[in-house]
Amino acid sequence: MKVGFIQFSPILGKPTQTLERLEYLIDKGKHSDILVLPELCNSGYAFNSRQQALNSSESVADSKFIRFLHEKSNKYNLYIVSGFCEKSDKDLYNSSFLVGPNEYIEVYRKSHLFLNEKDFFSPGNTDYSVYDIGICKIGMLICFDWVFPEAWRILALKGADIICHPSNIVLPDLCQKTIPGHSICNRMFIVTANRIGTEDNLTFTGSSIICDPRGNILTQASDDQEEVMISDIDLNLARDKSITSRNHIFLDRRPDKYLDIAKAIEESV
Amino acid sequence: MKVGFIQFSPILGKPTQTLERLEYLIDKGKHSDILVLPELCNSGYAFNSRQQALNSSESVADSKFIRFLHEKSNKYNLYIVSGFCEKSDKDLYNSSFLVGPNEYIEVYRKSHLFLNEKDFFSPGNTDYSVYDIGICKIGMLICFDWVFPEAWRILALKGADIICHPSNIVLPDLCQKTIPGHSICNRMFIVTANRIGTEDNLTFTGSSIICDPRGNILTQASDDQEEVMISDIDLNLARDKSITSRNHIFLDRRPDKYLDIAKAIEESV
Repeated sequence: MKVGFIQFSPILGKPTQTLERLEYLIDKGKHSDILVLPELCNSGYAFNSRQQALNSSESVADSKFIRFLHEKSNKYNLYIVSGFCEKSDKDLYNSSFLVGPNEYIEVYRKSHLFLNEKDFFSPGNTDYSVYDIGICKIGMLICFDWVFPEAWRILALKGADIICHPSNIVLPDLCQKTIPGHSICNRMFIVTANRIGTEDNLTFTGSSIICDPRGNILTQASDDQEEVMISDIDLNLARDKSITSRNHIFLDRRPDKYLDIAKAIEESV
Repeated sequence: MKVGFIQFSPILGKPTQTLERLEYLIDKGKHSDILVLPELCNSGYAFNSRQQALNSSESVADSKFIRFLHEKSNKYNLYIVSGFCEKSDKDLYNSSFLVGPNEYIEVYRKSHLFLNEKDFFSPGNTDYSVYDIGICKIGMLICFDWVFPEAWRILALKGADIICHPSNIVLPDLCQKTIPGHSICNRMFIVTANRIGTEDNLTFTGSSIICDPRGNILTQASDDQEEVMISDIDLNLARDKSITSRNHIFLDRRPDKYLDIAKAIEESV
């Protein structure tokens, strides 16, 4: 099967222009089975106020952006994961959705908020869930979630083959240096779709990657160009959790030793 | 402060020859504050039987190997971490010890056994502990423990600045690709001391590394040469857990979301 990402720059506060650009880019990526877009694609990132974030937000039930991607999903028979600025009652979330043919939709709300996101968004209240879309099992994480191994581990233990990871990364290198480790320890594919461009004093660092369960970077984008990249992947690499003939990365775990973590957490804060 | 490793080849079943070689190598590394040696240095690795492992094993209280390293530790006023084949009553463990001046000693027993180690050793029954040696706080992991993010996380949450990681790695690349991620997510220094040479059909892959909390490889050895390498490190990099002005990698954790992991573990096996 094929997985891909769209690395581009959503246009802050101009959703119609963003959709026009995505129309062109999704057409380029239409032969992928799954396409991953960056974080907060319906809004842009660098809000100056909560009101500005609110103005750019959409509810799942009434989102022009989601409707647009659902149409593309039906037209090309593919699944799309994208970040979006979500309104739910009085709360705003930095969320992602997975859409597929026939109005299929799942939503994840970012657990770990970065910098000023803490001023605009509520911390995610959804579970780390794995979605069986038939051709594979997908988990979603968003950008800064990358630094918390617990999130990757839970999705792996729940059976994820591929983590779709919409991002608006501004820290250079750190995430991309870490992804191979998450892939190897959990034997999953990871698609990190980062954005490019500059908003206020934030420059997004591109370098989107597709990483295989052996930590190999199958493809990597430039740090500043719009790009649509697709890789062929062999899901068996993610489903075979045997790292040697006698070592299984899940069955060899020592939950009896990890119970200690609860205590360690308390001690650390 | 300075941390270093000795990459070499212990001689299977010939502890006296191994000590002679270590005499020379430790002298080369004597200006380091901490020296990390590979896994199972008092014995070699590729045992053909449990009896052979037993013959090479030593109890902590009566180990010529530990006594030798204690002497070096006192002489040069440094701390040494090394893997060793440990006998304790009727059990054998693939263990490591941390020795320092004035008979200081701590022992860790490998939690996750690799390949045929399962025929010879009992799974480690010690905790993941952090040792405050005054100049820094040390945690120990052994070789294949590298693939289990839980172990690194627990040591990080308990306050480890540096993980000393004696290894006899045969899988090429995977560990070295993963270490930067463990360093970055936990903001710790990691010293992976691997061995070189061949025993039976196992070739050890060298490439020992010292990695900083930003995922930078400070130094890396060749894949097949005996080497003593030392890096200057700034402990503040490990103690500052703030990845941005508003993000702390421990305080930003979401333990409420991670409780789910217990359930995920059950579902996965």
